[in-house]
Amino acid sequence: MLTLFGNVDSGNVHKVQMILSRLSLPFRRVDVRQDRGQPRDARFLAINPMGKVPAVQLSDGDILSDSGAILFYFSSGTPLWPDVRRDQAEVLRWMFFEQYSHEPALAVLRYLKRFAPDPHAHQLRIIELVSKSNFVLGVLEKRLAEAEWVAGPAPTIADYALYPYTRWMDEVGFSHDDWPAISVWLNRIQKLPGFLPLYTDAATEIIAFADYFAARPL
Amino acid sequence: MLTLFGNVDSGNVHKVQMILSRLSLPFRRVDVRQDRGQPRDARFLAINPMGKVPAVQLSDGDILSDSGAILFYFSSGTPLWPDVRRDQAEVLRWMFFEQYSHEPALAVLRYLKRFAPDPHAHQLRIIELVSKSNFVLGVLEKRLAEAEWVAGPAPTIADYALYPYTRWMDEVGFSHDDWPAISVWLNRIQKLPGFLPLYTDAATEIIAFADYFAARPL
Repeated sequence: MLTLFGNVDSGNVHKVQMILSRLSLPFRRVDVRQDRGQPRDARFLAINPMGKVPAVQLSDGDILSDSGAILFYFSSGTPLWPDVRRDQAEVLRWMFFEQYSHEPALAVLRYLKRFAPDPHAHQLRIIELVSKSNFVLGVLEKRLAEAEWVAGPAPTIADYALYPYTRWMDEVGFSHDDWPAISVWLNRIQKLPGFLPLYTDAATEIIAFADYFAARPL
Repeated sequence: MLTLFGNVDSGNVHKVQMILSRLSLPFRRVDVRQDRGQPRDARFLAINPMGKVPAVQLSDGDILSDSGAILFYFSSGTPLWPDVRRDQAEVLRWMFFEQYSHEPALAVLRYLKRFAPDPHAHQLRIIELVSKSNFVLGVLEKRLAEAEWVAGPAPTIADYALYPYTRWMDEVGFSHDDWPAISVWLNRIQKLPGFLPLYTDAATEIIAFADYFAARPL
């Protein structure tokens, strides 16, 4: 049985849930909450020294972390990871774009507006992130005005990687109506087999952080 | 002939130069300068809509961007990209760590301290980035205290991806002496075949931005 470490509010964790759901791979989930600082708890750092969710424990006990690496691992050998080197590079290009440019704009904006104790303390940062978010949504809109899927002629893990924080644009003040090609693409993803909506869980069992580590001394 | 778009001051561009040098692939370089805003110039956006260096034009005219995707593309089929899926995922794990956590700390700190017009305007941001840099260097130090190479038993593109901004820690106030395992690893990389030092160029020809686009109307 696979064990996923992470919380339902995290788009990076949700990407992994979406892929596991798509590939019909059963898993349990240990709830590691960012709003409680649990990714930097010493007990979790023993699992992932990078101090980030998601992480996945494979059935052999081995632990893999980073949403992009996890999506690659599970999709390799399936149609969600193409066969040809040039096409694979294009998938990675969009996944690195998501982690380097797109997520640090849209996800940080969402954090500051939704979860930060005092959003008013971050007004200048929010203005900067709105500008960056507009740029990255523009890059995505341009691509999707010309193609049905982000990185090639068929859906890949790049589409899954870009889905959560793009879909959540409406939580941070953007309107789907202003990005018509993106909106059509979001709907297209929502019709893929095994689609898992945001804030829902595909885990067969959910284990609280304290309970998991109480049963598993370091 | 390959064409690399980017500047010598950029660690992300240097990673690509290092791999092309290691693999003995000749290329020319179009100088796209970040300090002049050239990555967001409309002429360059027609080449890479993501507005970032590096980008590479392949010999068939196709353009690939993003340092991680480019490193993957050229290393696939060589010993720098392992054969086994689990090992490949480990390489990507460290490359995503570099782009999501390591580079945004160390490279942005370097930008603010070395290139920003008024570093004093960014004191709070600098304090935050020093703390993040300490964390990511600690993650790397821990790994390299246990292993010779970042992502497995032999050098991979993850080592190349992590080299430039780690080596440049001394430009932003960190001392190599405080990170002994990292220092030994930096020396190990510097002994690899075809090693290309920072701030040096492996291009056979260098073309100025204006000259390249003057000869190539949109």
